[in-house]
Amino acid sequence: MMKNLTPMSEDFNQWYTDVIQEAELADYSPVKGTMVIRPYGYAIWENIQKYLDNRFKETGHKNAYFPLFIPKSFIQKEAEHVEGFSPELATVTHAGGKELEEPLIVRPTSETIINHMFSKWISSHRDLPMLINQWANVVRWEMRTRLFLRTSEFLWQEGHTAHATSEEANEEAIKMLNIYEEFVQDVAAVSVTKGLKSEMEKFAGAVKTYSIEAMMLDKKALQAGTSHELGQNFSKAFEIEFSDENNKLQHPFQTSWGVSTRLIGMIIMAHGDDKGLKLPPNLAPIQVVIVPIIPKKSDKDLVMKKVEEINKLLDEYRVEIDDRDEVTPGFKFNEWELKGVPIRIEIGPRDIENNKVIISRRDIDDSKTDIPIDKLTKEITQLLTDIQQNMYQKTKDHMSENTTHVDTKEELIETLKNKDGFVTCYWYENKEDETEIKELTSATIRCYPLDNDDTKKSINNKDEDGSFTIFSKAY
Amino acid sequence: MMKNLTPMSEDFNQWYTDVIQEAELADYSPVKGTMVIRPYGYAIWENIQKYLDNRFKETGHKNAYFPLFIPKSFIQKEAEHVEGFSPELATVTHAGGKELEEPLIVRPTSETIINHMFSKWISSHRDLPMLINQWANVVRWEMRTRLFLRTSEFLWQEGHTAHATSEEANEEAIKMLNIYEEFVQDVAAVSVTKGLKSEMEKFAGAVKTYSIEAMMLDKKALQAGTSHELGQNFSKAFEIEFSDENNKLQHPFQTSWGVSTRLIGMIIMAHGDDKGLKLPPNLAPIQVVIVPIIPKKSDKDLVMKKVEEINKLLDEYRVEIDDRDEVTPGFKFNEWELKGVPIRIEIGPRDIENNKVIISRRDIDDSKTDIPIDKLTKEITQLLTDIQQNMYQKTKDHMSENTTHVDTKEELIETLKNKDGFVTCYWYENKEDETEIKELTSATIRCYPLDNDDTKKSINNKDEDGSFTIFSKAY
Repeated sequence: MMKNLTPMSEDFNQWYTDVIQEAELADYSPVKGTMVIRPYGYAIWENIQKYLDNRFKETGHKNAYFPLFIPKSFIQKEAEHVEGFSPELATVTHAGGKELEEPLIVRPTSETIINHMFSKWISSHRDLPMLINQWANVVRWEMRTRLFLRTSEFLWQEGHTAHATSEEANEEAIKMLNIYEEFVQDVAAVSVTKGLKSEMEKFAGAVKTYSIEAMMLDKKALQAGTSHELGQNFSKAFEIEFSDENNKLQHPFQTSWGVSTRLIGMIIMAHGDDKGLKLPPNLAPIQVVIVPIIPKKSDKDLVMKKVEEINKLLDEYRVEIDDRDEVTPGFKFNEWELKGVPIRIEIGPRDIENNKVIISRRDIDDSKTDIPIDKLTKEITQLLTDIQQNMYQKTKDHMSENTTHVDTKEELIETLKNKDGFVTCYWYENKEDETEIKELTSATIRCYPLDNDDTKKSINNKDEDGSFTIFSKAY
Repeated sequence: MMKNLTPMSEDFNQWYTDVIQEAELADYSPVKGTMVIRPYGYAIWENIQKYLDNRFKETGHKNAYFPLFIPKSFIQKEAEHVEGFSPELATVTHAGGKELEEPLIVRPTSETIINHMFSKWISSHRDLPMLINQWANVVRWEMRTRLFLRTSEFLWQEGHTAHATSEEANEEAIKMLNIYEEFVQDVAAVSVTKGLKSEMEKFAGAVKTYSIEAMMLDKKALQAGTSHELGQNFSKAFEIEFSDENNKLQHPFQTSWGVSTRLIGMIIMAHGDDKGLKLPPNLAPIQVVIVPIIPKKSDKDLVMKKVEEINKLLDEYRVEIDDRDEVTPGFKFNEWELKGVPIRIEIGPRDIENNKVIISRRDIDDSKTDIPIDKLTKEITQLLTDIQQNMYQKTKDHMSENTTHVDTKEELIETLKNKDGFVTCYWYENKEDETEIKELTSATIRCYPLDNDDTKKSINNKDEDGSFTIFSKAY
C-alpha cells in the first residue's frame, strides 16, 4: 500500500501524527495517553542514548537504578516540588492482593527517592561530587497527550548530582546543558538557543532552570532539554549532610538534568516535509538504503552481486538493502523517503554497464546524480557530512528568519498574536506581566538566552532595565 | 573503615547480603521489597546488557518499548496467565487526581500488551517472523524478597516473537536458550544445565518452558534464564491472524524469553568467598586495579609516573587506578578483593628499580607473583583468559561433584532431605508425585536436561519409563 500523508502546509499537527504512524516510529496503545515505541522509533532513541551515555561517562557520571515507586510522603517533602507534580501523579493503592498502608506514587521524576539515598551515601566531602545518572521510564498523567511530545509515560534520562559548593553545582548544570546543546546541534542537526528559564517556567523545586530551545517547522518553540540548579532545596528537605574539610557539617548543592523521548518529536518537527521524515545522518538508524533495479528476472543475480559489493564498500555506515520482490522500486523510493533515510542508492543493469550508481539525497528535492562506483565510498562520506551540515544550517536559518525583535509591550502582544515564531525583547522578570502575556497570546517566555547578557530599558517596567528575552508559543 | 563480612561457611544468606551491601552493588530502598542498584552493580548489568543486546540484534531481533501499564482486562484474557500472576500484581487505581474507570496493572511481564499490538501489526506471512525485544522494568509483588534474586521491581529483557509454524517457534525458543547458555558460561563463567521445565514449573501460559539451571556455592539451584514456546495460546486469546501463502488465515506460533537482574545474584553466589565477590574478567566492570605503593611522599611522582605508563600499556582493558591518599595499601587490597576485581597490580619504588610489578589474581588465594614490566601486556592478557577459564571450570566441577544419582523414590526423598545439591533420577512426569516430593523435601524438578534424552524405568511409576530429571532445592 502507498502511504498517504496529510501535507504539512494543510495541517501541521495531522502531518506530524501521520508521519509517526506511517513511518512506524510509534503507535497508540490501548492505555489512554501512553504509546508504543516501534523498532524504527526505538532505534532513534538508542542512537540518542548511545551518544549521551558516552558523554555522561566521559564527564565522570555513573549510571544507577532507583525504584519506580516512591512513598507518597517523599513527594510531599519539598513544598514546590509537590505542588508542581500533584496534578499529574499516578498512584498504586493495591499490591499483592491487599490495600497498601501508604499509597505509592509512580515516579514522575526521581529527585525525592534519589536524595533519600544520597542522605545514606554522603557523609564526607570525600563522597563529593556524587555524579549519578539514571535511564528510566517516568509517568506524568496528562490530559491532552501527543505521541512523543506529551505522553503519560515516557522514557528519559535524569542526572542527579551533589557538590560541595554552589559554584561547582552551577558549573555542572551548565556543563550538562552544553552536552545537550552539542547533541542536538551536532547529532540531531537542530539549532538551539541556550538560556535561563523565567521563575514561572522553572522546574518545581529548582533555584534555576536552564534549557535549550529549538524552533519547529511550524515556528513554535520546543524545549529540548533542561538542566536545573537545585541549590540546597532537596539536600535540606532530605537531610543530606557532609562534613567538610574543617569537619563542619554542610548541606551539599545539587543539580538535576534530563532529556526524553520528546527529542524524537523534535527531530520529526524540525526536519520533515510532505514526503515524511528527514533524519540527520549522525542519528539515522539507516544512513543509506540500496534499492536494486531489476527489470527482468534474469538480471537479478548480476544486480544483487553488485549490490553486495557496494554494501561492502560502505561497511562503516548503517546500510539497508531493500531486496523485496513484492513491491516496485517506486514504492520503495516513497517508503524510504517517508522514513527519512538520508541517502538512496539505485542500481540496475545499465548502471552496472557504466560502472556507476544513482544517488539521491533526502534533504534536497530532485537531487539525483550519477556516481562512479570507484568513487562511491569517498562520495558517500562527503555527502553524509554535507547533508548533516545542510540540515543543521536550515534549522538555524529558519530560526533567525522567524525571530522578530520588539520594543514595546503592545508590539510584543500584537506580534505574538498575529505572527508565528520567536519574539525577542528586553523584559523585566515579573510573574504577573508574564501571566498577562500568556493569557492574551498563549505564548510564554522560552528563555533568557545565555549568549546575550545585554540589559536595556525593559518593555514592561518603565523604571527597570530588562534582560534579552525570547517569547514564543511552544510545545 | 574495614569491611566485615559474615563468613560464607557460617551463614551463606547473611554472607550474600553483606557482600551486596559492602561491595556497594545494591542497597535497600525505602519501598518495601524494592532495591536500589548502585553504580558498581549497575555497571555489571550494563555489561550483561551489552553482550546480550548485541547477540539479540545479530540474530535479527529489534528493540521496542511497550507501556508500563496494562488494562486489567488484558491480563485476564489468557486463563493460565492470569491465574499465575494474579497474586503478584500491583494496581494503579488513581491518576491525575481521579479514580480510573478501569484499574491499570503495572506490567509483571508484557505478553498481553505486546500481543495486543501484534494483532494490529501482523496481517500477512510477510510480516513474520516478528522478532521483538524489550529492556524494561517489571513489577511482581513478592512477600519474601531478597536483593537481586527476588524483588518487587526488577530490570529484565523480554523477547516476544511470532512465527508462521510451530517448528520455527521451537527453533527460536531453543536459539535464545542457547544464547543465554553462551552468555552465562562464556561471560559469567558459570556452568549451566539446559533443560525443559515440568508442567508444574512452566511459565503461566506457555506450552513448553526451557531454562538454564546453575548451581550456587551453597549447592542450591538457580534458574538463570527461561525461554518459552507459547504455541497459539496468546495468538488465539489476542486474535492475532496472518494470511498464509495460500491466503488462508492462521494464528501464528509464539515464543517469549527473558533474563533479569537476578543474573547478578547468580554471579555473586556462584563465585564468591569469605573476602567477598569474585567477578569473571569478561564481565567485570574493573578487570585490573593498580595500587601504587608510596612509602614516602617523595616517592609519589616517580611511582605515579610509572602507574600512568602501566595504565597505557593496558589501555585495551578496564583498568582502575586507586591513588587515594587517605587509606593504606592494605585497606585498598581488602576493598578490591571485596569488589571482586580479577587482577591487582602493586607497584612501588623497589619494583620500579627492578622494572617489575607484583600481580595477584582474585580467583586463587595467595597468588602473588612478580612480572617484568616489558612482559606485562602479554601476561595480563593470558591471565585474564586463565582466570575466566578457571572460574568456569570451578563451577562445572562443583556441579558434578554435588550431583547424586538415585534409583528409587525413597532414595530420592532421603537424598533431597539429607544432602544439598542436585539429585538425578528417571522420572515420569506427574504433578501429584512432584507435589509430594516438594512437600516432603522442598525440592522441585529443575529440568529435564536436553543433553540427555535417555528414557529408563521411572522411579515413580512402575509401569512407565521416565526421563532423566534433576531435582534440587532452588532460589
